[in-house]
This record gives sequence, C-alpha cells and structure tokens, in this order.
Amino acid sequence: MTVPTIGVTAGDPGGIGPEVVVKTLARAAGLPEAAYVVFADPRLIGAEQERLGTGIAFREWRPDLPAEPGIFLAAMPGPAGGAAAASAAAANGEASFRSFEAAVGRARAGRLQAVVTAPISKASWALAGHPYRGHTEYLARLYPETIMAFWSDRLKVALFSHHRPLGEAVAAVRRDALVEFLRSLHRGLQRVPGGPFRLLAAGLNPHAGEDGRLGREEIDEIRPALEKAVSEGIPVTGPFPPDTVFLQALGKRDAVAVALYHDQGLIAFKLAAFATGVNVTLGLPFVRTSPDHGTAFDIAGKGVADPRSMEEAVRLAAAFSATGS
Amino acid sequence: MTVPTIGVTAGDPGGIGPEVVVKTLARAAGLPEAAYVVFADPRLIGAEQERLGTGIAFREWRPDLPAEPGIFLAAMPGPAGGAAAASAAAANGEASFRSFEAAVGRARAGRLQAVVTAPISKASWALAGHPYRGHTEYLARLYPETIMAFWSDRLKVALFSHHRPLGEAVAAVRRDALVEFLRSLHRGLQRVPGGPFRLLAAGLNPHAGEDGRLGREEIDEIRPALEKAVSEGIPVTGPFPPDTVFLQALGKRDAVAVALYHDQGLIAFKLAAFATGVNVTLGLPFVRTSPDHGTAFDIAGKGVADPRSMEEAVRLAAAFSATGS
Repeated sequence: MTVPTIGVTAGDPGGIGPEVVVKTLARAAGLPEAAYVVFADPRLIGAEQERLGTGIAFREWRPDLPAEPGIFLAAMPGPAGGAAAASAAAANGEASFRSFEAAVGRARAGRLQAVVTAPISKASWALAGHPYRGHTEYLARLYPETIMAFWSDRLKVALFSHHRPLGEAVAAVRRDALVEFLRSLHRGLQRVPGGPFRLLAAGLNPHAGEDGRLGREEIDEIRPALEKAVSEGIPVTGPFPPDTVFLQALGKRDAVAVALYHDQGLIAFKLAAFATGVNVTLGLPFVRTSPDHGTAFDIAGKGVADPRSMEEAVRLAAAFSATGS
Repeated sequence: MTVPTIGVTAGDPGGIGPEVVVKTLARAAGLPEAAYVVFADPRLIGAEQERLGTGIAFREWRPDLPAEPGIFLAAMPGPAGGAAAASAAAANGEASFRSFEAAVGRARAGRLQAVVTAPISKASWALAGHPYRGHTEYLARLYPETIMAFWSDRLKVALFSHHRPLGEAVAAVRRDALVEFLRSLHRGLQRVPGGPFRLLAAGLNPHAGEDGRLGREEIDEIRPALEKAVSEGIPVTGPFPPDTVFLQALGKRDAVAVALYHDQGLIAFKLAAFATGVNVTLGLPFVRTSPDHGTAFDIAGKGVADPRSMEEAVRLAAAFSATGS
C-alpha cells in the first residue's frame, strides 16, 4: 500500500502560515500516514522552528522515488533579503507565489495527490505582479470548473459565487449558470469521500421569496434550475429559506448546503465551524485544501496562532487523497 | 413594589401558539414575578390545558385594579365555529388579530408594560382582511421608529431592513436612511436593560467591500453614515466584514450587531441562538417580544412544540419591563 503525497505550502512569509505549518507538522504523529512535502524556503522554516522550539527532521523530497511516510522539504527560494515581517511585501508575494506554483505544477504532473495551502497575502501577490485574488482564482484559470467550498464535520457549504459585490451577486443568480454550477459541483463531489452527498439549495430572498411576494428569483431562476438538475440525476432540493437551510444541513454528514453568495454561506460556516473549518477547492484533478483564516499579520511572529484549521486542512487532504482518484 | 403587567397573546388558534403559551405559564413558578395576562378565547385555552394535562388556574383580569403577581385571562372572542386546526383560516386570523389589537390597545393605554406575542399566521390574517405581514408591520404603522431585533445571551442583532427582496434591500442601503435607523436604534436601546449597548455595523459586500474592490456601498453610503452617527454620540463601529461581525458580537452582552438585510442577520442569529432566541420590537413606548419561530402548522396539536423560545420571550419581557419606563 502506498501512502499519498501531500504538498504543503507555507503561505506568505510575513504571515502566520509558516507558524501554523510548523506547529501542525511538529505533531505529525497524530496526523494520517502520508508523505508531507513542505514547499518553502529552508531558512524560513528553520527560523520558525527555532522560534517555536520544534525539532521536525525534514528530509529532502525526491519526487522520482516512491512515496513513503514522513516529512519532507522541497526547497524553494525565499524572499530576497529575508522576509518582511507582518506586512505585505513584493518579495514575500513572489516567494509564496513561486512555492504555490511549484506545488500545483507537481500536483498536475501527478507527483502530489493533494496541495494544502497556508494563507497568502493578496496584497503581497499584487506587489509582486501576480494579480490573483487568491489560490482559488489562480486554480480557476487552469480549471474552469473550480468551486469554492467549506468543509467541516458540522457543516459543508459550496459557494455559487464568492468575490463580487452583493448587487452583482444577486444579478448573477440566473438559471443557466446555476445549472452549470450544480453539474460541476455534483461532478466535483464524486471524488470526495463520505458521499454520496445531497445538495440543499438556499434561496436568494428572505423566506426564499415567499411565493414571489419577497422576490422573483426563486420562481424565475432557481426553481427551474433545480428542476433541470434533478432531471439530470443531481440530488438537489430547495430552494429553502436562507436563514434555516444551514440549520437543516447542520450535523448531517452527507448534506452540502449551496449558498448563492459569499456571505450567505460564510456567515453560516464561520459560526458553525469556527477555528476548525477548512476551505476546499472542488473541480480539480487533485485535492486542494486550506485553513479558512488569512495571514493574520496582527499576530504574526508572536507564536500564538491557532493551528487547528491548518491541522484540519491537512487531515482532510489526507482523507480525500486516500480515497481519491 | 408593584409588579409589571405583561400581556401574552396566544397567536393563531391553529398553530403552536396556544400550546407554547400554556406550557410556559404552567411552569410560571420559574418565571419572573409579574401579572401575566393571556389575551385569548377561554375555550381555546381550556382545550389546550385539557390536551396537555396542565392545571393553570386563570383569574379574571381587572385592568382597573393594581397589578399583583399571578396568571390572568382577558377573555377574547374565539374563532366562530371553533379553531381550524393546523392550517390558515379566516376565522383564526380574525381571532388572533383581535387579541393582538386588544393587547396593544391596553399597552398603549398604559395598562400593560409589555406584550408577548405567540406566532400568528400571515395567511390567516390575509384571509381575514388584515394585510399586515406580521406583528412588527402592524406596530410600525403606529410607531414609525419600530425596529426588528433579535435577542439572546449569545448574540443580539438589529435589522436595518427585513421583509424585502434582496435586490431591493441592497438598493436601500443609503446614507440618510442608515443614519435615521441608527438614531432610532440608539434611542430604542436606551430603554433596554443591560446597556449601554455598542453597535457593530456589518458591511454589505464580501469583506466589507475591500476598499471598493468588492463594492462601493461601504465607501459611498455606510462609512459616511457611521461617521455622522458617531458625531452625534452614537457608539457605532464598522463596517465590518459580514462573515466575521457576528463572531465579534458573539458572547458580548453589550454588543448589538447591525445587519443590513434580513438573512445577513437571521442566518447568524438562528445558528447562534436556535430555540432560545427572542424577537424584540424596539422603538415602542412599551416592550414587545415574541418567540423567533412561526405557527409550525406541521406539528400543531401534537403536544411536541418546544416552548423554550416562548419562555425566553416572556422572561425578556419581564426583565425589560422591570427596568423600563
């Protein structure tokens, strides 16, 4: 039996990414058996180990050899002149972008079954000339069926739209786009262990429009889309009132709530799964997870970052890899 | 020391209102000391007591006498021909409307310090020719500063807008209206025990617009409104990202989160305070609370309704009355 190989990027060198990666892997005995490969500057990881007093013995990663359990390092160039601490910087952005790009390249080549990404700074990426909002947007350019989802034992949520103004998100709720999304989501979930999953679709308006009295989108766009999806064998029900659909999905391991806009899903998810939620990208030929927090520049370098979401991201990547393609 | 007099309406005769009222008052020994006056048809309450096996000894309410602790009945006409069970009906709507109207009339006349309302059926009201969406909309006609809020130990939320399509709710986020709302909310909260309260305002767009990249409302409307409010001495901060503002307010007894639309507030509140949340109407010269559930026709008459939210509504009304005007 071979173990999965899981790439782990350290994120922005000035944020809490290196810290939560080191904290997580320092307790690797409690993690699923896998080859964990950290894509990072060895000096950055060394400095973090020194600061935290951890003693992870990294081995050099040889992607051409069969995977064996352990913790490996794929050495990446660090920020020129050292990491700028706790703020956005071009050198930091370039370093985190290169590490992510390298890990994705290895995953596309079949050398990694999963990529776990610590948080990058969008501002650092912009300063370095990489105009992506984040990992998901980079991946969406490579894989158009990319879907942003959030995963925990308590609640699972997939987002129909995410980073757009609310007014635009409302206007984007259209029948054809929703059918396409449900098809992609259904396909993406086939690869995810714990299934088959059923989809609970949120409405857009209060009380799911209340038969048109509080908005027409449920009647004109959402119901027809759900009917079309059901006719294609996609197990979706709804639209349900947005303020109760997440309660319906709560605690049901096979239920995925479909949110129509960023905050509809994220308000629910962050309340239900704070500190242990994991961001999952569906629709890729490999697994990609990340903690659901950011660089947290305000607490970076203080040793107080909570690694639980990172740990869960690693666990989930390992679980998904074990049963994946 | 006089006790407060608290009116309690039984809501739609075909829903779970009578059941949760009787269950709550049957355990009155655990409630704050007050004169509780149920506005309902004596036959309806008698039938409910028989079904539940409770033995509340109601006394006739004499509004002209000084209040003393106990449980009283203000006899109201019941539905002609008896209550239609578990469905909307004109006779039920007329009965629940008349009881509510009577209780509000007594409160306006200073005979009640609070009104606690069990859930009505909007459909029954419509069939009876009363075109209000609910209690709050009826009260808003009498008191233009009426604000719909949700209250629990864990989380408190006030809604800038509630029952309108999401697209309209987005368009309604305008500076002047928001300033007016914050003034009303601040005034309304003066009467509420546990204060002074501070307001945490949610943004409208993902990440509160991210400096305009994800929407302009925070810059053009919300920030100017908050600055104006602060200049008038209203303790409000924000706008905060909608998916974290409720976490910020969670567990802080003096924090009230300001939600800009129905589901922004209600998704958070129902997850944070399920089964014990209370709907509170601010901006009235008396206290009005209600459970945050509906008529639940699907379980009406089965004796299985959960009275906790009703109990909390009664407790909160008593607490608010004790320190109120």
